[in-house]
Amino acid sequence: MPHLKRVNALKEAAFEEGGFDGYLIFNGINQLYFLGFPGTSALLVPPDGEATLYVYSVNYEQAKAMGKGFNVELVKANENFLAKIAKKAVDCKIKKLAVDALGVQTWVNLIDELGGPKVEVNNSHIESLRLVKDEVEIGLMRRAGELTGEGMKAAFEVVKPGAKEFEVAAQIEYAMRSRGAGPTAFESIVASGQCSAFPHGGCSGREIREGDLVVVDIGATYQYYCSDMTRTFVVGKPSSKQQKIYDTVKVAQQKAFEAAKAGVSAADLDAVARKFITAAGFGQYFVHRLGHGVGLEVHEPPSMSSTNKNKLVAGCVVTDEPGIYVPGFGGVRIEDTLLMGLHGAERLTTGPYNLKPA
Amino acid sequence: MPHLKRVNALKEAAFEEGGFDGYLIFNGINQLYFLGFPGTSALLVPPDGEATLYVYSVNYEQAKAMGKGFNVELVKANENFLAKIAKKAVDCKIKKLAVDALGVQTWVNLIDELGGPKVEVNNSHIESLRLVKDEVEIGLMRRAGELTGEGMKAAFEVVKPGAKEFEVAAQIEYAMRSRGAGPTAFESIVASGQCSAFPHGGCSGREIREGDLVVVDIGATYQYYCSDMTRTFVVGKPSSKQQKIYDTVKVAQQKAFEAAKAGVSAADLDAVARKFITAAGFGQYFVHRLGHGVGLEVHEPPSMSSTNKNKLVAGCVVTDEPGIYVPGFGGVRIEDTLLMGLHGAERLTTGPYNLKPA
Repeated sequence: MPHLKRVNALKEAAFEEGGFDGYLIFNGINQLYFLGFPGTSALLVPPDGEATLYVYSVNYEQAKAMGKGFNVELVKANENFLAKIAKKAVDCKIKKLAVDALGVQTWVNLIDELGGPKVEVNNSHIESLRLVKDEVEIGLMRRAGELTGEGMKAAFEVVKPGAKEFEVAAQIEYAMRSRGAGPTAFESIVASGQCSAFPHGGCSGREIREGDLVVVDIGATYQYYCSDMTRTFVVGKPSSKQQKIYDTVKVAQQKAFEAAKAGVSAADLDAVARKFITAAGFGQYFVHRLGHGVGLEVHEPPSMSSTNKNKLVAGCVVTDEPGIYVPGFGGVRIEDTLLMGLHGAERLTTGPYNLKPA
Repeated sequence: MPHLKRVNALKEAAFEEGGFDGYLIFNGINQLYFLGFPGTSALLVPPDGEATLYVYSVNYEQAKAMGKGFNVELVKANENFLAKIAKKAVDCKIKKLAVDALGVQTWVNLIDELGGPKVEVNNSHIESLRLVKDEVEIGLMRRAGELTGEGMKAAFEVVKPGAKEFEVAAQIEYAMRSRGAGPTAFESIVASGQCSAFPHGGCSGREIREGDLVVVDIGATYQYYCSDMTRTFVVGKPSSKQQKIYDTVKVAQQKAFEAAKAGVSAADLDAVARKFITAAGFGQYFVHRLGHGVGLEVHEPPSMSSTNKNKLVAGCVVTDEPGIYVPGFGGVRIEDTLLMGLHGAERLTTGPYNLKPA
């Protein structure tokens, strides 16, 4: 279902306030934000009237059926795609065109085909729109979070000695998918033993053993919207060092959650978690930022890093995921996806919160 | 496990024959081809000595553990990443640098940081290497094909009246994943009823009904290598029109398979299937090319289109997937992934080949 309100919001920001009079959108995720369905090759927003979708024959019938409110143009296999867009841009009398993103060769060809109009690579207006989630988006992300929690419950059941990492992933993904989730938001991580010390430890055929730390980092999608959640299990009785690392990460994650609200900067929240972990003596092992924005992409603005001094706004969705990774020993990460509100944050991912599987 | 032989092959093609003396690789899939593991931000191949991986702290320990034969450089969060690469390129006395792919803004910044050396966006050497699969790759793609066949067997069992599209996808994906597959190569398509007439018909909560055509287009990955396979089921007894469309597609797919071997052009194979479908009266409903290359990406060169007159080479892997899509009625597509040989092609995907589920 197309989102014409979002197209209008883009025109307001980029045309009325931004000085552009045309927007050419190549990025597939940006297209999805405005259209609600995939398969478009380019989206041209003119100063007046309907925006145009450029679609190859393979997706043409689908775009016509779903693209209410848009002009749908068929691009033939042997047609010069950029020349077709350029002609339209010139016909619409566009004087200053924004292009969200494109490769160097496409850029060179486009400038060439356009001739007159000024062109600028500029994604800032779309980024700003996508940063603040509307009610529809929040509803979808809430559902994605619930489905991710169902996946984590499955992990909680099946992580045990002898289980292979990919078998755990299979059960997690089945739990999410069979309840209506789309494809996973990213490659599920089930990283056990020493691999748990790699933040992106993947998912192999390794058998989980007694005494392992097991980092499970998963995310369902629901109607294209992502979720992101991590829990870390110890198989069997935790050693005192495992327990200490776990408790440190858990408290750091909770402290950042409690400090989270609109008006606080990403850097401030990163500092809350990092100071606590550093005071506990593990600062050198927290080798990544506190988190990242989540939406149609699992990694999108805002970056929750020590260098991002921008204040978080209500309606943005971010992760809170401190971790401690001791090479050769193992790692612990705990992560939730948070919806930022005026007076605090809400966890969109909830689920088992225990060190030990049952 | 890094593939130093592939790096050497790139140096031979791009440096000795291509006139470059440095290669900067930003594309993550290209990096994977040379490294065998993800998480690198840039890969610089100098004229002499070890290539350098640029890695942020989150992936640094993993890259050091896995990047045997490469120099692994840590990029700090507050560091100027491009300046760091540019300095290295200048230190290595690179005079003509190839860059595989990058955005316009990165391009502008890179030229600026580099100062001296000539830079050219050029992916052709890597594309040529990736086009011909070596024995290791063929082994992995064979396994990906087998796993995809297991998924299709599951679909064959569970497609029946009352099953929801996403429930079918859940069973398919579980069948693949629990046997050791990685994440799916693309979003599984289970498109029933009228949606089967959309070549990219997705996978919704729709309940499958008696009499439906159901297009199931799926692909497992195995150690990052993709597979791609489609079967179309009719639920219950096919109508004579459904049967005619199905038989037409099946014969067209088989004819293209039988004509496939090294030395034949992609356009020729597309024509074999297209002529047969056109003669049966359905030419206007075959709205896409015959297929595409498959490898680390599910869509990669060579394009199996009517405009690609290049001859296929032994060792390339492509899909053979004709389809007929009648808007408002339904669609049929049958697809296998083929390994091209000197005297014929081999199906890497095999499995149920029937119109009706049991």
